[in-house]
Amino acid sequence: MEFVAAPARLSTADATFEHDFAQRLHWSADTDAAIEQRVADILADVQARGDAAVLEYTARFDGLSAESMAALELTQAELKAAFDGLPDEQRQALESAARRVKSYHEAQKKANGESWSYRDEDGSLLGQKVTPLDRVGIYVPGGKAAYPSSVLMNAIPAHVAGVPEIIMVVPTPKGEKNALVLAAAYVAGVTRAFTIGGAQAVAALAYGTATIPKVDKITGPGNAYVASAKKRVFGLVGIDMIAGPSEILVLADGTTPPDWVAMDLFSQAEHDELAQSILLCPDADYIAAVQREIDRLLPEMPRKAIIAKSLSDRGALILTKDMEEACAISNRIAPEHLEVSSRDPHRWEPLLKHAGAIFLGAYTSESLGDYCAGPNHVLPTSGTARFSSPLGVYDFQKRSSLIEVSEAGAQTLGQIASVLAHGEGLQGHARAAEMRLK
Amino acid sequence: MEFVAAPARLSTADATFEHDFAQRLHWSADTDAAIEQRVADILADVQARGDAAVLEYTARFDGLSAESMAALELTQAELKAAFDGLPDEQRQALESAARRVKSYHEAQKKANGESWSYRDEDGSLLGQKVTPLDRVGIYVPGGKAAYPSSVLMNAIPAHVAGVPEIIMVVPTPKGEKNALVLAAAYVAGVTRAFTIGGAQAVAALAYGTATIPKVDKITGPGNAYVASAKKRVFGLVGIDMIAGPSEILVLADGTTPPDWVAMDLFSQAEHDELAQSILLCPDADYIAAVQREIDRLLPEMPRKAIIAKSLSDRGALILTKDMEEACAISNRIAPEHLEVSSRDPHRWEPLLKHAGAIFLGAYTSESLGDYCAGPNHVLPTSGTARFSSPLGVYDFQKRSSLIEVSEAGAQTLGQIASVLAHGEGLQGHARAAEMRLK
Repeated sequence: MEFVAAPARLSTADATFEHDFAQRLHWSADTDAAIEQRVADILADVQARGDAAVLEYTARFDGLSAESMAALELTQAELKAAFDGLPDEQRQALESAARRVKSYHEAQKKANGESWSYRDEDGSLLGQKVTPLDRVGIYVPGGKAAYPSSVLMNAIPAHVAGVPEIIMVVPTPKGEKNALVLAAAYVAGVTRAFTIGGAQAVAALAYGTATIPKVDKITGPGNAYVASAKKRVFGLVGIDMIAGPSEILVLADGTTPPDWVAMDLFSQAEHDELAQSILLCPDADYIAAVQREIDRLLPEMPRKAIIAKSLSDRGALILTKDMEEACAISNRIAPEHLEVSSRDPHRWEPLLKHAGAIFLGAYTSESLGDYCAGPNHVLPTSGTARFSSPLGVYDFQKRSSLIEVSEAGAQTLGQIASVLAHGEGLQGHARAAEMRLK
Repeated sequence: MEFVAAPARLSTADATFEHDFAQRLHWSADTDAAIEQRVADILADVQARGDAAVLEYTARFDGLSAESMAALELTQAELKAAFDGLPDEQRQALESAARRVKSYHEAQKKANGESWSYRDEDGSLLGQKVTPLDRVGIYVPGGKAAYPSSVLMNAIPAHVAGVPEIIMVVPTPKGEKNALVLAAAYVAGVTRAFTIGGAQAVAALAYGTATIPKVDKITGPGNAYVASAKKRVFGLVGIDMIAGPSEILVLADGTTPPDWVAMDLFSQAEHDELAQSILLCPDADYIAAVQREIDRLLPEMPRKAIIAKSLSDRGALILTKDMEEACAISNRIAPEHLEVSSRDPHRWEPLLKHAGAIFLGAYTSESLGDYCAGPNHVLPTSGTARFSSPLGVYDFQKRSSLIEVSEAGAQTLGQIASVLAHGEGLQGHARAAEMRLK
């Protein structure tokens, strides 16, 4: 069977551009009422019956029967054995990736994640204490799409933040374990790991059971059941963002070899048919060259069926007036991954306001960032880069304000607080301030 | 009518302590199915009909009829007039509070909110660019409980973050406007303000209407309808946390005048009957002295009915073995406000892991922090300080990872990425990395 990858060809000069562009971008998460209800039931059941419920759902949904939850725990010895059993090349790659991810997140913590304070002119101390969460849960998808890199990207920032307990859950349908995932858990320093998944795993982490410790926050991607369960337990525990389909946007000035760009578009499209790959470029000849490379390279790709469908249904090659206009359109999209494939990426970077991650220059393929450059690959999707950020050390820390008012400060502040508290009709607040006045 | 404030008297030495303590702490947000459904309907209606729907709901729920949304906009001139019309004392207090809140948040941004990057040994650049959100919405409750201080606490961090557009919504039931709230909007630099509220205001901000601009994030407290609406639009826009009842926990070593501590407990209890005030202290005589001050001071309080009910239903004076045990119990509660009312607060502060804000020393009444010390008064409630933080500049910023891989870096990283991508069955990712190898 022959596959054709035919991304939409748009030009900002077309009269219909705004309409066509809006159509191509449109995506909305279906909320499936049936899934919502089943998830609500599973959560309530796990909350009520704990381990027994988790065991039943694991048998039913994952085809994995066990006598007790203890039998579903992966021991540290088992994680280490998985690591030791890998081919040298994989073991070294995992370790190198982990080392780089760790040093990036250590730099992040040092730059933006340390406690700070100062004293004002009255000698009062003001600041914030930054501390790690006590215990977090990491959801790792299992089955066909097993991503050891996601284990590193979730566990390492937690580790760098100083979280003492990192609990991993990973479904193992019919008991099939992925050696790379287990090895990644070993490398990333996961504290405990359980072979459970779905809404039942989220419930176990959020409420705690006799065996599964209750966590303070749950991160990591999952299917519709997992996403719905995370949304429901939000507030009782923290969660990271709910991910939509993955996206790449390539801003090209026409100087990168077109086969590199074609493959970068493929690397997003191969994830899933809903993934979105977009090229913005002011050079029509270059766009044509990229399409030729798409046609030439597609037949070689093992996942060509998915790539063809994703590019044809959701992809676009967009001709812009100039690079400035391409940057402006990128800001409207607020892409998850943004490649600035230009000879002069630092000229354009300051114009780019919203993106999960910005990959600068022809050598910076998204896939290098996905695995091992260091930055996190858990990024805001579906335009949420307008208001949210990559997963980071800050997701595993929280802050407490510190205030120590001096006797002198209590005089200055007490007057102000008293006036404002009376203005709000809160006399207790006012009196508490006034009592500290001399 | 005489009111009695009788907080529970517990001791950690009692056999029933764990049970009694758990009972006292228990609080859970009711989810009211009727409210949920009405909110869902309002959101859908505003999304479909825009301004017309907002106008109808405003007329129905707030008793405020207007011809057009334009008539519900507060002009900058009106905000300024409200400010100019205040008594000198209030005007100065607002300005002083705003100045202090601003300088605290500027320090916060400088300490933890600036872009950073470094180059690795291959010359590759790694870092994060920190940028402000484009446009945010601030929900300010109206009617009886009007809190101008909340306007400052929400708008100023957004302003310091560099958000260019700050849209305030505040319901004005029957058209009654609170001059202090309008003046606070003027002082805090709100860009535009509308007299709308409830779920319809949240919907207007999340979806945008012909008149109300769509925002990227909505912050600020509100009633059950507002909280439910914020939860529903979460994902489309960012939201801050959903607040539960307010709480104070006082750790006392017995050296602070007991009337000061009694008034600090009142200042929380007066907010609302569900508010929680707890004292932890190893000195039984001091606890008795605080109870005597409670009894003595209560009759003087205008809000004595609320204080009495809150303290009797939810308050507690807990005798502990020592200060160390008091700190450990505080960590279990993870209080919103934590006063360390001790001669030596810096001895105990390092033991305190979870709290929204920590007030150190006898002079630091919570009320000084609520209004004007500088730190934010929007804090995590109901134990969510285990995983969340005070509202801050960081809530109005987002981050984009920056990656620029050098030609040399592409050789090192390409090998690692290729191995891991093949291990995950993502050949497009592998090929994109391999193409950059020499």
